[in-house]
Amino acid sequence: MKVTLKDGSFKEYDQPMSIYDIALDISEGLARVACVGEIDGETKDLRTIVDKDCTLNILTFDSDAGKKAYRHTCAHVLAQAVKNLYPDAKLTIGPAIDNGYYYDFDMPSLDRDALDAIEKEMKKIIKKGDRLERYTLSKDEAIKLMTERDEPYKVEMIKEHPDTDELSFYQQGDFIEFCAGPHLMSTKPIKAFKLTASSGAYWRGDEHNKMLTRIYGTAYTKKADLEEYLEYLADIKNRDHNKLGRDMDLFTTVDVIGQGLPLFMPKGTKMIQKLQRWIEDLEDNEWGYVRTRTPLMAKSDLYKISDHWGHYKEGMFLLGEDDEDENGNSISGRDIFALRPMTCPFQYYVYKARQKSYRDLPYRMGETSTLFRNEDSGEMHGLTRVRQFTISEGHLICTPEQIADEFKNCVRLAKYCLETLGLEEDVTYRMSKWDPEHPDKYLGDAEEWDRVEGAMREILDDIGMKYTEEAGEAAFYGPKLDIQAKNVYGKEDTMITIQLDMFLAERFDMYYIDQNGDKKRPYIIHRTSLGCYERTLAWLIEKYAGKFPTWLCPEQVRVLPISDKYMDYAQSVLAELKKNGIDATVDGRSEKIGYKIREARMDKLPYMLVVGGKEEEAGLVSVRSRFAGDEGQKPLADFINDICQEIRTKEIRKELPEDEKK
Amino acid sequence: MKVTLKDGSFKEYDQPMSIYDIALDISEGLARVACVGEIDGETKDLRTIVDKDCTLNILTFDSDAGKKAYRHTCAHVLAQAVKNLYPDAKLTIGPAIDNGYYYDFDMPSLDRDALDAIEKEMKKIIKKGDRLERYTLSKDEAIKLMTERDEPYKVEMIKEHPDTDELSFYQQGDFIEFCAGPHLMSTKPIKAFKLTASSGAYWRGDEHNKMLTRIYGTAYTKKADLEEYLEYLADIKNRDHNKLGRDMDLFTTVDVIGQGLPLFMPKGTKMIQKLQRWIEDLEDNEWGYVRTRTPLMAKSDLYKISDHWGHYKEGMFLLGEDDEDENGNSISGRDIFALRPMTCPFQYYVYKARQKSYRDLPYRMGETSTLFRNEDSGEMHGLTRVRQFTISEGHLICTPEQIADEFKNCVRLAKYCLETLGLEEDVTYRMSKWDPEHPDKYLGDAEEWDRVEGAMREILDDIGMKYTEEAGEAAFYGPKLDIQAKNVYGKEDTMITIQLDMFLAERFDMYYIDQNGDKKRPYIIHRTSLGCYERTLAWLIEKYAGKFPTWLCPEQVRVLPISDKYMDYAQSVLAELKKNGIDATVDGRSEKIGYKIREARMDKLPYMLVVGGKEEEAGLVSVRSRFAGDEGQKPLADFINDICQEIRTKEIRKELPEDEKK
Repeated sequence: MKVTLKDGSFKEYDQPMSIYDIALDISEGLARVACVGEIDGETKDLRTIVDKDCTLNILTFDSDAGKKAYRHTCAHVLAQAVKNLYPDAKLTIGPAIDNGYYYDFDMPSLDRDALDAIEKEMKKIIKKGDRLERYTLSKDEAIKLMTERDEPYKVEMIKEHPDTDELSFYQQGDFIEFCAGPHLMSTKPIKAFKLTASSGAYWRGDEHNKMLTRIYGTAYTKKADLEEYLEYLADIKNRDHNKLGRDMDLFTTVDVIGQGLPLFMPKGTKMIQKLQRWIEDLEDNEWGYVRTRTPLMAKSDLYKISDHWGHYKEGMFLLGEDDEDENGNSISGRDIFALRPMTCPFQYYVYKARQKSYRDLPYRMGETSTLFRNEDSGEMHGLTRVRQFTISEGHLICTPEQIADEFKNCVRLAKYCLETLGLEEDVTYRMSKWDPEHPDKYLGDAEEWDRVEGAMREILDDIGMKYTEEAGEAAFYGPKLDIQAKNVYGKEDTMITIQLDMFLAERFDMYYIDQNGDKKRPYIIHRTSLGCYERTLAWLIEKYAGKFPTWLCPEQVRVLPISDKYMDYAQSVLAELKKNGIDATVDGRSEKIGYKIREARMDKLPYMLVVGGKEEEAGLVSVRSRFAGDEGQKPLADFINDICQEIRTKEIRKELPEDEKK
Repeated sequence: MKVTLKDGSFKEYDQPMSIYDIALDISEGLARVACVGEIDGETKDLRTIVDKDCTLNILTFDSDAGKKAYRHTCAHVLAQAVKNLYPDAKLTIGPAIDNGYYYDFDMPSLDRDALDAIEKEMKKIIKKGDRLERYTLSKDEAIKLMTERDEPYKVEMIKEHPDTDELSFYQQGDFIEFCAGPHLMSTKPIKAFKLTASSGAYWRGDEHNKMLTRIYGTAYTKKADLEEYLEYLADIKNRDHNKLGRDMDLFTTVDVIGQGLPLFMPKGTKMIQKLQRWIEDLEDNEWGYVRTRTPLMAKSDLYKISDHWGHYKEGMFLLGEDDEDENGNSISGRDIFALRPMTCPFQYYVYKARQKSYRDLPYRMGETSTLFRNEDSGEMHGLTRVRQFTISEGHLICTPEQIADEFKNCVRLAKYCLETLGLEEDVTYRMSKWDPEHPDKYLGDAEEWDRVEGAMREILDDIGMKYTEEAGEAAFYGPKLDIQAKNVYGKEDTMITIQLDMFLAERFDMYYIDQNGDKKRPYIIHRTSLGCYERTLAWLIEKYAGKFPTWLCPEQVRVLPISDKYMDYAQSVLAELKKNGIDATVDGRSEKIGYKIREARMDKLPYMLVVGGKEEEAGLVSVRSRFAGDEGQKPLADFINDICQEIRTKEIRKELPEDEKK
């Protein structure tokens, strides 16, 4: 047989050979670092026997598939170590994931000391360097084996296979794992690994099942690479908004108030106030929006017209009992109210309050709108998964001729907001379509959806935008352009959404009078310019690790008198700053100036103004900034001019590397 | 017997005389205008027989008691007229009220034409001038009479009297009314009357009872007085925020959304935005507040600590079913959430998030806070009785030494807000105390309440404030200073409240570290600076009849080009205005300038800028204002200077009388 290699060369063998043996035949060095093979483009275990002509690519840790096999093997080492130390722990699953692997055990939770002990045990196993043997069993044999070894989760998984399957096992020493592979040939090549965290996780991710103990880890072929990754992890942890946002006193949560209901502390409140006023004024004064303020709840009657009652009731908070009979009529006769999960029908009634003509269109409505979603407690996370949030919501009512331009302008506005905040490079665009397999989850039929999705595609292509398409992610009333971003852990969320709605104008009997005096149905765009403020704040915290652009900082300047003698001057500087709309304070404590500066730095302040005798005499301030360190003495008026300019233009001043700061 | 008259003179009679006969004896003129008599200070029917020494005061329409008898008699005329025209209508009650009277009938509702017809019938009755005869019946006779006449409501009322009562009736012509009086001698003296309105009203004011038809009317002795009153009524109607606010497109309501849930239209939203930003910046930048933003709902756990659960649960919206057992434990095991009716416990947790020392106090927290109250549908009214509202809420946490000064500053801030809006002269101050008869409705005991009410009284007296005291109006956790105002119909509401709280710091275990390093309980003030924005807007609408101070107007300036030729100049003027933060628009329609001016006036705009050839050439604008009419030509820059000054200082520019306007 003839085996064509990646570089085009080939090898010929007259008997079947395993991939590993072929690697060995090519060079011992290659065999040492080989992780998996790719036969005719398909990833295979190194033990796979090659018995006919093929192309073969031997993959190392440098490839994705190689990393996966390498780390998956480390997960087996982890499982073996746990079983050695905790014989009662039950095995479940342990896959490789981005940047590492995890394993879920049915066992009590673990602290850092326990993880350290497990790492020690893993080192022993790797040092021993047992080979991983692969073999297959029939389903009955497999069940028998795992029942004997008292691994009920494995038995449960095996039982789900067809009776005729041959099931593969990997064994190193006395540790046996029901597993599809592929794996390294032995535990020996694992050079650098680390258990990074432990948490709870439900069996099969279902909150009705038992809570298991998940151990996260990673593994590299070089110690330096592992260290770099661990540094990166530490940085992520320091950026995690759910930690940093609390440390910086931006928000907190309270047990007796509930999960998913953050309380914004004064600093966080100030930041959201700045974002909110910026967006309101931007939309109203520069993008032609009118502003509304509509109630946060309504009778079920409203949601029945919009059909949120039919498509979204589970996600809504009902006030009082839901006492509807099967026909949707109230049993007690009283009104059923629900908190709103969206603003659309409320703004439609603002539109409907007065008859509109084509001259009134496009009618662009914006609202700083608080919404409520009844999500499971388990889903709650920091500022990104919450039960209550406030969004820069809006609806544009337009004629058919206006829809394309208006949609494009919505995209432009969103991009402008992202650019202003320095976030634009971090996003991807996704066209979210309906799911033709589940038409019952949507209003309308396939033909209508094809038409509107086609129209959206045309608009997006016309802008020249790069986007992916995803079925099943549309709103029930139309397709969406979703602007996606990842958090520090790589989890993707929708930050901004712009939607075409082809059904609700009809359901709400919205119309306008056209040039001929006839009633016409308008088109509707649902959109946000910046998304919800909670999520945006989380994003900003992680993006800037708390070192926000000056205009957004809750405290932009701190005046530091070098001693009590200069308090009066410090106060007069403060008054001048405040008069110019700058958020400033004085640190008037009787502390050493070095201590005050260190503390201001810890608080990630953009500017400190140190004032003493020299400054007072000449009306100067000594400027220290987060960006450049010591910026020298300046007349106060000059500093105010500079910072006002920076705030007005929303400049994102770059920070010099530490060693270039003065 | 000797009858002493009001002027000190006396009359002597040797036989019993009716008050009316005594009046007749004094002068025929007096008898003609007499409405009731006052014997030894007690109001009596003119028919009352005087048979012993007494002082007698004969009262005319000029007295309150006289007006009442006069108008109550007119209510009988109304009832007689209705029975003449609608023999099936059933009588209920028909008292005199401030400024008039009403009568409730069990009958279908009536339109204006029907009221006009009833007025006509009343005129006939008055012209006929039947005497009103008074007589009494035993309870059994009374029931028999009213049963014969098929008046079931009267029968119901009679049955509630003790069996031994002698019950009085008044009869004019064939119309008989079960009534305590007093009344005029005949229908003849009723000179000028009017039926002003008709509405629905529940029998005995209970929404579980039948809806009756209420007819409102008034009556005067002089036609001129009636006309003056009707003019006043028309003015009130034009100021009524629930009508004018809708007419001006400030807000609307929608049946399918629900009562008490107003939707703010763009203009109303703009006004609330201006008020809100003003208050936020005022509190934060000038009065030392920090701002919070806390969730609109919480678990019942929170409300149990504050004891709102015990004292206020009925007024709260619960999310989902209330599935508590008798011990207050959840039956299903899930959390019970409720929408918040107040902000206090939420802000307490902001205070508690970091340990505070005496140096951090007073800690003044402000929040633009949306609250929810589960009120009956029947209670809802415009913007003043709503289910959801947003208030400039705040809590001050202070040391015992600070409480008096902080309380006084809260009063100063509230007064400053009222003065700025021109509302200060319209308010009265009320100290709201607990109800010693119902101690179970409050936290704490009599001694504690006496102490804190005493402390509040001392503070108020120290300010030199004029205030009333009212028992039973306190919050359950402490006494309040309520700032009260009346709406156009004279109904009083609390607009602003400042409260002392002596219990919740303990319940929430709030403390601060004092100079000696010891934990101490702080004192708490609950307060608002301007009250809730919905109610304030309603008040402003009624106060100014929609002609708001310029800074508050959603549209401050409208630019009116005299023809299409000057659209470019109009647009450049608009751009300049907007650049200066002025809310301005252009009326670019191809309409006559006179038409545009009339429309801008109807919209109650403060300023119109008329622009044509002359203005364009010289960079001028022709200013017309709501205040002074034609203000002549000005350079645009001068106009901008003037209006910016007016807006910045929140000036309330006085309007000249129509005939003094140019």
